[in-house]
Amino acid sequence: MDVGGTKTEGVAVDVDGTILARLRRPTEWGADAVIAGIVETTQALAAEVGFTAADILSVGVGVPGLVDAAQGRVLHAVNLGVESLDIARLAGAEIGAPIFVENDVKAAALGAASLRPDTAPMAYLNLGTGVAAGVVTGGRLWRGSRGIAGEVGHIPIEPNGRLCGCGQRGCIETLCGGGAVGRAWGRGGDYPVLDVYDAADAGDVEARALRADIARGAAAAVSVLVLTTDVETVVIGGGLTALADRLEPDLRAALRMNAAASPFIASLRLDERIELLAPGSPVAALGAALLGVEQPLSYPVGAADTSAVTFDKENPDHG
Amino acid sequence: MDVGGTKTEGVAVDVDGTILARLRRPTEWGADAVIAGIVETTQALAAEVGFTAADILSVGVGVPGLVDAAQGRVLHAVNLGVESLDIARLAGAEIGAPIFVENDVKAAALGAASLRPDTAPMAYLNLGTGVAAGVVTGGRLWRGSRGIAGEVGHIPIEPNGRLCGCGQRGCIETLCGGGAVGRAWGRGGDYPVLDVYDAADAGDVEARALRADIARGAAAAVSVLVLTTDVETVVIGGGLTALADRLEPDLRAALRMNAAASPFIASLRLDERIELLAPGSPVAALGAALLGVEQPLSYPVGAADTSAVTFDKENPDHG
Repeated sequence: MDVGGTKTEGVAVDVDGTILARLRRPTEWGADAVIAGIVETTQALAAEVGFTAADILSVGVGVPGLVDAAQGRVLHAVNLGVESLDIARLAGAEIGAPIFVENDVKAAALGAASLRPDTAPMAYLNLGTGVAAGVVTGGRLWRGSRGIAGEVGHIPIEPNGRLCGCGQRGCIETLCGGGAVGRAWGRGGDYPVLDVYDAADAGDVEARALRADIARGAAAAVSVLVLTTDVETVVIGGGLTALADRLEPDLRAALRMNAAASPFIASLRLDERIELLAPGSPVAALGAALLGVEQPLSYPVGAADTSAVTFDKENPDHG
Repeated sequence: MDVGGTKTEGVAVDVDGTILARLRRPTEWGADAVIAGIVETTQALAAEVGFTAADILSVGVGVPGLVDAAQGRVLHAVNLGVESLDIARLAGAEIGAPIFVENDVKAAALGAASLRPDTAPMAYLNLGTGVAAGVVTGGRLWRGSRGIAGEVGHIPIEPNGRLCGCGQRGCIETLCGGGAVGRAWGRGGDYPVLDVYDAADAGDVEARALRADIARGAAAAVSVLVLTTDVETVVIGGGLTALADRLEPDLRAALRMNAAASPFIASLRLDERIELLAPGSPVAALGAALLGVEQPLSYPVGAADTSAVTFDKENPDHG
């Protein structure tokens, strides 16, 4: 399941990755509510497909935040109202099956990769409130050394650009992150990116500049991912794909404009290497469900775990 | 061996990676001279350590250019005066041992990784005439899908920056590549980057700006490598390390300045994750020699190979 800040998306998946059932429910905030939601979602899906507890091989949970996958723990999940939560231990004790936990974008990368016809290196680029990516090769996530691989959103590409939430200026996320675009637009609304596109279509000069920024930022993210990791394909998902019919032509035009200026960039054929997911594709829930297939379990199922978080040993604030 | 545009550096290496002998000789240009140089370097090293032909398990060759490692071929090696050269086939027929070929920066990445105390994900960042990197994890090169992984030099970070040889503006390489710095300095000289540092020390305003650009560009390359691939360490080598006593303090200051602006960047502790190689470290030759340990051989030793290059199947110009 994908436990997001507003909704939880769950899928029941067969051992070969076939989706047997799917459900969506609101997410409630706070440690107890998050654990209860995970247990209830698991039970509801099991009931729908006629599984007993013994039929559940594993449960995977994608969450926004810094995840210690080895310990099955999430840190700084501000969108869930939790500072630190031992999801694997607490939910595992109630469900009685191994629980795997992963950052939601990384889980989505694994899910998007599982839908591809081959196992060539690929990246999943999430254009949502924030901008981040995950890289998968041979069916496995590239984890890196400290869990921050794929943080393309915080690469600055405009020295005098807008101030980013991270403190830098001109980060890719300031151009194409939904949150940053909404702040730059500054006119409120539930769907400010949609408002920007509509206003741009109506000729608003400021909106047209912001709309161009979105395409330029997304194109830069694609380019950075290919130049650094040489993924064959960049699959694009996240909330902004709800606007795909307007985002995709803009993005392809931006990629072609970069290619027109540079034979080297042209040789990368970036325009041919992107794919946009259909809006609402449950890739994060699917990828989370597949975590039990992808990674070995390093903690005891259902056992109390009192060890310190070792994930970010350089930064004791995270412990 | 590392067959560079001006010199060839060779090492004889034991199966455990110990360097038994080392030599340096000028590189001669053109297909026949490059192959002859590889054969003569191999023979000279073998003679020095008392090896017969049968003692040579494999020969590794690092070359500047686009390398088809599977075929042991280099393409577009303009610095060697060759457009396409079947190094593995032609040199293998004369040497009688398997020949492995790799891009020189990727070979250096493998060599630099072999000198580290652990197998954590690491990147080698080459600050030379150009700027490029290689990523190694678990002792193996991250190859990506088309052989361009690590091309951080051509990520634009200044929309209105200097024109890059690749056609884009404000690429990282325009800030910290020796060739680009020399062109921006525009006063000739055999070692324009050294001249820039000396002039900056003497108070020249233009030189001080270029010197700041070098540090800023190198800091951006380090940051991009960590944010995308989450390598634990970035090892820095290449011609600019000859100026390490002046480059390193500038680079560390630039990394600390970025960290001061951003708690997120500060949490990456980039300043603690860089290491500069000693000038002249033969990491590319060492890494090339280790290629036979790292990768399986996919072509027949010494056999004629008339198949088309399949490496860049999307771009028939490379064939």
